[in-house]
Amino acid sequence: MLDLEKLYSESAKIMKASVIRELLKLTRVPGIISFAGGLPAPETFPTEKIKEITSTVIDREGPLMMQYGPTEGSPGLKEELIKYIKNDVTDYDFKQENFLITTASQQALDLLGKAFINPGDTIVVGLPSYLGALQAFNAYRTRFIGIPVDNDGMVPEILEKNLGELKAAGKPLPKFIYTIPDFQNPAGITYTYERRKAILEIAYKYDIPVIEDSPYRELRYTGEKVESMLSMDKKGYVIAMFTFSKTMIPGFRLGWVVAKNPEIIQKLVIIKQGVDLCTPPFTQAIATEFLKRGYLETQVKANVAFYKQKQRAMLNCLDQYMPKLEGLSWTKPEGGMFLWLTLPKGMNADEMLYQAVEEKVAYVIGSAFFCNGEGKNTMRINFSYPTLENIDVGIKKLARVISEFAEKNKEKAAH
Amino acid sequence: MLDLEKLYSESAKIMKASVIRELLKLTRVPGIISFAGGLPAPETFPTEKIKEITSTVIDREGPLMMQYGPTEGSPGLKEELIKYIKNDVTDYDFKQENFLITTASQQALDLLGKAFINPGDTIVVGLPSYLGALQAFNAYRTRFIGIPVDNDGMVPEILEKNLGELKAAGKPLPKFIYTIPDFQNPAGITYTYERRKAILEIAYKYDIPVIEDSPYRELRYTGEKVESMLSMDKKGYVIAMFTFSKTMIPGFRLGWVVAKNPEIIQKLVIIKQGVDLCTPPFTQAIATEFLKRGYLETQVKANVAFYKQKQRAMLNCLDQYMPKLEGLSWTKPEGGMFLWLTLPKGMNADEMLYQAVEEKVAYVIGSAFFCNGEGKNTMRINFSYPTLENIDVGIKKLARVISEFAEKNKEKAAH
Repeated sequence: MLDLEKLYSESAKIMKASVIRELLKLTRVPGIISFAGGLPAPETFPTEKIKEITSTVIDREGPLMMQYGPTEGSPGLKEELIKYIKNDVTDYDFKQENFLITTASQQALDLLGKAFINPGDTIVVGLPSYLGALQAFNAYRTRFIGIPVDNDGMVPEILEKNLGELKAAGKPLPKFIYTIPDFQNPAGITYTYERRKAILEIAYKYDIPVIEDSPYRELRYTGEKVESMLSMDKKGYVIAMFTFSKTMIPGFRLGWVVAKNPEIIQKLVIIKQGVDLCTPPFTQAIATEFLKRGYLETQVKANVAFYKQKQRAMLNCLDQYMPKLEGLSWTKPEGGMFLWLTLPKGMNADEMLYQAVEEKVAYVIGSAFFCNGEGKNTMRINFSYPTLENIDVGIKKLARVISEFAEKNKEKAAH
Repeated sequence: MLDLEKLYSESAKIMKASVIRELLKLTRVPGIISFAGGLPAPETFPTEKIKEITSTVIDREGPLMMQYGPTEGSPGLKEELIKYIKNDVTDYDFKQENFLITTASQQALDLLGKAFINPGDTIVVGLPSYLGALQAFNAYRTRFIGIPVDNDGMVPEILEKNLGELKAAGKPLPKFIYTIPDFQNPAGITYTYERRKAILEIAYKYDIPVIEDSPYRELRYTGEKVESMLSMDKKGYVIAMFTFSKTMIPGFRLGWVVAKNPEIIQKLVIIKQGVDLCTPPFTQAIATEFLKRGYLETQVKANVAFYKQKQRAMLNCLDQYMPKLEGLSWTKPEGGMFLWLTLPKGMNADEMLYQAVEEKVAYVIGSAFFCNGEGKNTMRINFSYPTLENIDVGIKKLARVISEFAEKNKEKAAH
């Protein structure tokens, strides 16, 4: 008999079906209102445009888009991205060599893990941080250094203290600092300019690359845009990651990595060669034409208008329905798809989920986003996917669940 | 300054721009006839069908194919594959749980590397073997055990001897045996039934999984189909890999893994989650409809008819033009895209390449496919991509290069 457990790599052994995935299964109940997902709303998808473009590009360049393509990505798509990025990074001349097209952002995370992490190496992540990144990096058997993220972003003083202590002890420094500065998944917060600058200065001081994961950057509903770390970076320390999953469609699985330092891109290209040879040229060709026609700008505007309503509705409903409990609070995201709700201390969101599911409302437990298992009294709430009506009904339900659960908790504490 | 070399993982450090890629660059000369590539002929691509299908499926299921999809792959595509595989494996009831859709075969190789290989673990590969597999596995810092491949396949006696010695010495056994039984890339040979059975028996005896990489299986031009190891496998030891890259189009980057043991698939799903979340649902939806309409069967027949001409032409030209030199030989592939040419002993195909490029003809050096650096007097020749005319002109050129190079070698030896 094949003893698979014996045959699996150490990496595969630690990758088990996660508790959170089991909890998510629990939430798949008919009639449930789920704030647990992280999906863009299908109403935003430019279905007709993509249909028309696909016909056009197949007529024009069918055989080329159906063939294998370069590992670096289609030069045509990169050319469009070079133009597009000028809207955001105004004072830098990016070239083809600064870009790598990836099979969406998740692949970029995997490539970065492979590029930098030896088993036992440390990396810096936020407390909380994107679960998919934790999973991707975990596969390389990294040890996480979790740095708290507050309403203004990752706390630089704590980061600096940690790095200083490691250095003083002669211990190896982390391989990179992983950040999601805009409308962070899961917390929905945005790093201030000062925080970005402070983190970049720390990176320069300790010679550590910074990963800037930017899936939501263009989805801003209120407030002013903050300069990206990619734009601020004068020394080639920042590796930025973008995706079309939230601004065009996720179904193409298209993303890209940008770095001012082309050496990093070259290394990622060599790694990607062994990982999937190339990202589908078929979908790259469609996306190229979508950009060429200026449809992405239009689409981003439409998505912002659409999601802005949901973000407002969500915040209004929370204000209106949530019980007045000491310690109950939530973030006020200026963009993106998520907000973060903190229950009063001592209330356990993992346990409360069972009750919520009974009441037909669901969220993701916040502890899933903490590399150190903290955050038991937190949850992530998605507002991009549910309808306005479901936001209203769902938040009302959630408020009731929280009230009742707080009541029970009080009784328990009294006994 | 960022010291990238210091920051890179051990894995990234060993992945350098390969000599072969540099040599391939050398062959990109205007007017060259290249037998170096491994591309399907674009004339075979069902461009119009894909165009029409894409419109139809966008109309029917646009939002679904544009959204994120399950990591396992689209259930609809798996359903079609379950029906399709019955053409080949007649006595087994495959279920959804036996399939994983991958971002083409290369991803399956990477997932298998991640699933099984710890740094320093050994795996068995053929001498020679597919370069992309060597690269994918090398990223996991494996040590290769190379087993000779002759005209009938991997030599089981040598495999058994190796494993027996390891076992006797109390050393760890290889994590898997990697095979390409049908029209092997690079050698073009096909494993006989007896060889497949013998290798499977060895796998059972030593409890080692067998990877059966089958990108070309359906492209048979002469001779009789040999039962696949997946079909022969009664104990769930075989992990088979397929792709649409050679029978539909490569531009979708769609492949799939099949195993009778669903546990292996489950583990690969968990690993894939961190690697790219899911294979593009957009292209999966198009491929599903392509299969549903029976187009794949038609397409395979058309490809076989098309490539059969090229395979014949290539073999005829070799017979006609090659000089009569002792030790000069080539394989006679019954299918696939490649054949393998062996130069007389002492002739170095790496060195000869410069001369070939001067004469405007190119091949891939055979040593690139040997994990142990052997095979200096061999080369891989592709016949799927060049036109019939270029096959004729190119083989004539190559024959002249070989004659002249042999002459020079003789002179050198005489001095």
